[in-house]
Amino acid sequence: MNVLSYQKLYQFTFEVFIKIGCSEAHAHLATKVLLSADLRGIDSHGVARLSGYIRLWEAGRINANPNIQIEYETPSTAVVNGDGGLGLVVAPFAMQVAIEKAKQFGTGWVSVNHSNHFGIAGYHAMMALENDMIGMAMTNASPLVAPTFSTERLLGTNPIAVAVPAKNQPPFVADMATTTAANGKLEILQRKGLDAPTGWIQNKDGLSSTNPHELKDGGALIPLGSDYEHGSHKGYALGSIVDIFSAVLSGANYGPWVPPFVAFLQPPADPVGKGIGHFFGAMRVDAFRPADEFKSHMDNWISRFRKAKTVAGKENVLIPGDPEREAEIIRLKNGIPVNEKVLEDLTQLGQKMNINFKKD
Amino acid sequence: MNVLSYQKLYQFTFEVFIKIGCSEAHAHLATKVLLSADLRGIDSHGVARLSGYIRLWEAGRINANPNIQIEYETPSTAVVNGDGGLGLVVAPFAMQVAIEKAKQFGTGWVSVNHSNHFGIAGYHAMMALENDMIGMAMTNASPLVAPTFSTERLLGTNPIAVAVPAKNQPPFVADMATTTAANGKLEILQRKGLDAPTGWIQNKDGLSSTNPHELKDGGALIPLGSDYEHGSHKGYALGSIVDIFSAVLSGANYGPWVPPFVAFLQPPADPVGKGIGHFFGAMRVDAFRPADEFKSHMDNWISRFRKAKTVAGKENVLIPGDPEREAEIIRLKNGIPVNEKVLEDLTQLGQKMNINFKKD
Repeated sequence: MNVLSYQKLYQFTFEVFIKIGCSEAHAHLATKVLLSADLRGIDSHGVARLSGYIRLWEAGRINANPNIQIEYETPSTAVVNGDGGLGLVVAPFAMQVAIEKAKQFGTGWVSVNHSNHFGIAGYHAMMALENDMIGMAMTNASPLVAPTFSTERLLGTNPIAVAVPAKNQPPFVADMATTTAANGKLEILQRKGLDAPTGWIQNKDGLSSTNPHELKDGGALIPLGSDYEHGSHKGYALGSIVDIFSAVLSGANYGPWVPPFVAFLQPPADPVGKGIGHFFGAMRVDAFRPADEFKSHMDNWISRFRKAKTVAGKENVLIPGDPEREAEIIRLKNGIPVNEKVLEDLTQLGQKMNINFKKD
Repeated sequence: MNVLSYQKLYQFTFEVFIKIGCSEAHAHLATKVLLSADLRGIDSHGVARLSGYIRLWEAGRINANPNIQIEYETPSTAVVNGDGGLGLVVAPFAMQVAIEKAKQFGTGWVSVNHSNHFGIAGYHAMMALENDMIGMAMTNASPLVAPTFSTERLLGTNPIAVAVPAKNQPPFVADMATTTAANGKLEILQRKGLDAPTGWIQNKDGLSSTNPHELKDGGALIPLGSDYEHGSHKGYALGSIVDIFSAVLSGANYGPWVPPFVAFLQPPADPVGKGIGHFFGAMRVDAFRPADEFKSHMDNWISRFRKAKTVAGKENVLIPGDPEREAEIIRLKNGIPVNEKVLEDLTQLGQKMNINFKKD
């Protein structure tokens, strides 16, 4: 495993975005959003995907100079058209619209069409925190997940993030795929040549499988819950809600019509909307009760849960956001571990784009 | 199993609510909301709980004549104080506030304190449908659920309901506990003397158990996901979000401070708020895109998922809300099956309150 500094990865990623024609401001923003995944320990969604974004741009499926616009709005809602831009810049624009609406009207809710993948949902939800707001972010994604009882892949891993400010405690930040396991966890098993636990994957006939390569053979990821007896219909419902809020509300593609992230697969020939969709929400906490009172009670909530009695062998109960925050502290200081395959990929990308990329 | 007509159960339940001092309007509303559970096949949340509500009233923990009020509001938000009333009447009041705000400002979001159990979340979320709005409802509840890695019961089964209107298709209505299995499912196993599947329950030490009586001995329900490897930390996060939105935003009790539903257990002596909390949302679909366009795409979404290829042995893929809607049609026509124990309970309740309750 190679360890690269945040600064090194930042500089390289920024230059790549500049090379494809992003403005300086967009290149900085896209870099910051993309690398927030690496900092927070969500390796699957960070720099490991950079060359994937670039291949989509090469295929003409990402617009490096989007004219991102509010297409329609009411006091507390808006639809944003991402103009085919990087989700990494479209999403912060839309979340900022939600925040501005919340400042004026208490809450803001923004559904986005014609976008692309937006990195980690948690980044966008967390934009609300410094405004003393609760932030929400979700997105649909390439269909890899089969509804309960189905053999077809009709939903993405469709994550939901919710960020809640506290006072002296760090914020509560949940950021989760609505599947039992996110695709990134499969990629890790594939690299290591390990089997997956049962309940993560089904084969092309809908039978339980432990083969992490099953998706290449018509298999699917399973919604949170693993099987019907353990509530996979709930994970399926959650993923569906994300799809509907992100795409049916906005006029993006939904379900099996969501364009694939990989450039070698063509988008469906019969789109039902534009690009992929996101959904953002911001709620000013003082639109409900005084902010200081709310945040003091969040501190109380968090510390009560943090000191809950644990099962044998576990030191403490985690608050959503704890592992990612701890990873960020360590990685900012010690650097970001980059897998050999990802490093090779970045080196090739640098050569192709004539950008110097060598290890520190 | 005895089968009683909806009309019979309605008349009896209505009279019970009148006897405790509810107004006619509140008695009708509480009856309608409570029995919507029985109609929709969610037997644990309907008339089976009637005597539980009455025992709480006898213990002075339910106010039959509440002065339900908006405590604070902004254009798109409100906090409603339920004045200790039946959640069955507080919740529709609060949801109506959300709907009125959505009419004016695009969306409405209402957090509720000082309430009690509100029946099924789905009823309240579905109030939005006839207004061409998406409805959301959630509530916290008595602590029965242990966070991942904990042996303590800090969360309720904290359900989330989301209702989305369609055009010619019936609406999409998800209504789910954020646990692997709701408590009602355990009660069914207890009555039948059957074991629970692994992954639903843990014992007092946090170890997996199949004993449906485990909660009486310090055990706990498990968040959706069943164990860490299968994402129980996601179910824990979802239940936490429901708790925070319902109670930390509103000033109700949260986490282990939520007062128990059963009258024989006292509420905690050190409350952190008032009563239990709920959260409601309403989003006008035409605050995003023309309602007809949205609903046509929902029809397309629903029919695509409905006709998905199925695994062997399954006839079709279900859309959230399908089983409940089908139960309602059958039960309105053929009557509502009432368990022997529940029937006995209702008969005793009738005797105690001097209301005639005999089978058809």
